[in-house]
Amino acid sequence: LKIPKFKRIPKHIAIIPDGNRRWAVDNGLEKYEGYQYGINPGLEAFDLCTKLGVEEFTFFGFTQDNAKRPKEQVVEFTKACIASVEALSKKNADLVIVGKSDSDVFPKELLPYTKRTKFGNGKTRVNFLVNYGWQWDLNYGYERTNENGNMISNIASNDIPRVDLVIRWGGRYRLSGILPIQTVYSDLYVIDEMWPAFKPEHIYEALEWYQTQDVTLGG
Amino acid sequence: LKIPKFKRIPKHIAIIPDGNRRWAVDNGLEKYEGYQYGINPGLEAFDLCTKLGVEEFTFFGFTQDNAKRPKEQVVEFTKACIASVEALSKKNADLVIVGKSDSDVFPKELLPYTKRTKFGNGKTRVNFLVNYGWQWDLNYGYERTNENGNMISNIASNDIPRVDLVIRWGGRYRLSGILPIQTVYSDLYVIDEMWPAFKPEHIYEALEWYQTQDVTLGG
Repeated sequence: LKIPKFKRIPKHIAIIPDGNRRWAVDNGLEKYEGYQYGINPGLEAFDLCTKLGVEEFTFFGFTQDNAKRPKEQVVEFTKACIASVEALSKKNADLVIVGKSDSDVFPKELLPYTKRTKFGNGKTRVNFLVNYGWQWDLNYGYERTNENGNMISNIASNDIPRVDLVIRWGGRYRLSGILPIQTVYSDLYVIDEMWPAFKPEHIYEALEWYQTQDVTLGG
Repeated sequence: LKIPKFKRIPKHIAIIPDGNRRWAVDNGLEKYEGYQYGINPGLEAFDLCTKLGVEEFTFFGFTQDNAKRPKEQVVEFTKACIASVEALSKKNADLVIVGKSDSDVFPKELLPYTKRTKFGNGKTRVNFLVNYGWQWDLNYGYERTNENGNMISNIASNDIPRVDLVIRWGGRYRLSGILPIQTVYSDLYVIDEMWPAFKPEHIYEALEWYQTQDVTLGG
């Protein structure tokens, strides 16, 4: 497959991989069985973004709210997160996992990566949100504005910069609490297909659209 | 015009009235001349939402970032905000203006409404964002989480509840900093036409779409 050329590539893409459960049901499986089919799409999307020159890649693993779902679903999406990081460790990535790690639902296997870790040449920055919560993020730490009115924040995701483009699979036009501070000016592109049905063309489509958008950052 | 029936009406709609300047240029006017054509659409949208049973209506007036635009634009969108509130005062509304009011760009005429004010029977709650800034909002006041991990926040917009549906005119798929806390789970519906080209059908279209969406609130 030939990778198209783009005029303007977002520096930072965030992925909302929604639709695993709907895909499973549509394919005659139990809801919880969908998550394992979401692992390869994430790795493919990462490889593609790296090739395209995207510098930073954020992946919405699971949230504190998601962790309240039926046990067998929680088990499966947790396993999918662990398997994804394992596969990522064989690639070129600079990984950090952001999420509430002092919690039973946070997988022990991923604890080392709550500190940034380079794999290979560490080319692409990856922010993997695991047991993430927007309230937890915003409340993590805090200092008031300085005398110039600038926010000096200690949000948990402080190390993650502004997101240029959010690509969401599964047809919903919402951010669902992904990095509320970093996404205030993000463009949202929605793919109707479910995440396990990921195709490289989805990313191309999103990037073709993105390059027609202006960047005003609220101005 | 007959108002259609909907199965499910959002309690709280937020309007992003984008495209005044593009509309002006498309119509052979100067950019700043577009804003005055955005006043009636706002009042029409408000009337329609009231009739439809929407309980709360948030309107993105202008932001602190917008206030850095060329003077003649700032003058015009400020006048449009004042005129809108004047017209609203003859309707049934429970108005509050949320924004940085201790600033030169905040219109003095609107100062009384930084406290909630009932007009007529005060039926529909209206939150009008004037010289609003998401950083200002989040930094307004703050207390840390309580022992249960719940956020006890004194954000400036604390009185404004969760937004169910954001309708944005002007074709951009972004939130542009409108109430980041209240919009984490909002559905975003985008109208390609510019705000001054508002038609009731735009609202109907958004509501038809909205009733096909699920409400998971991140779960």
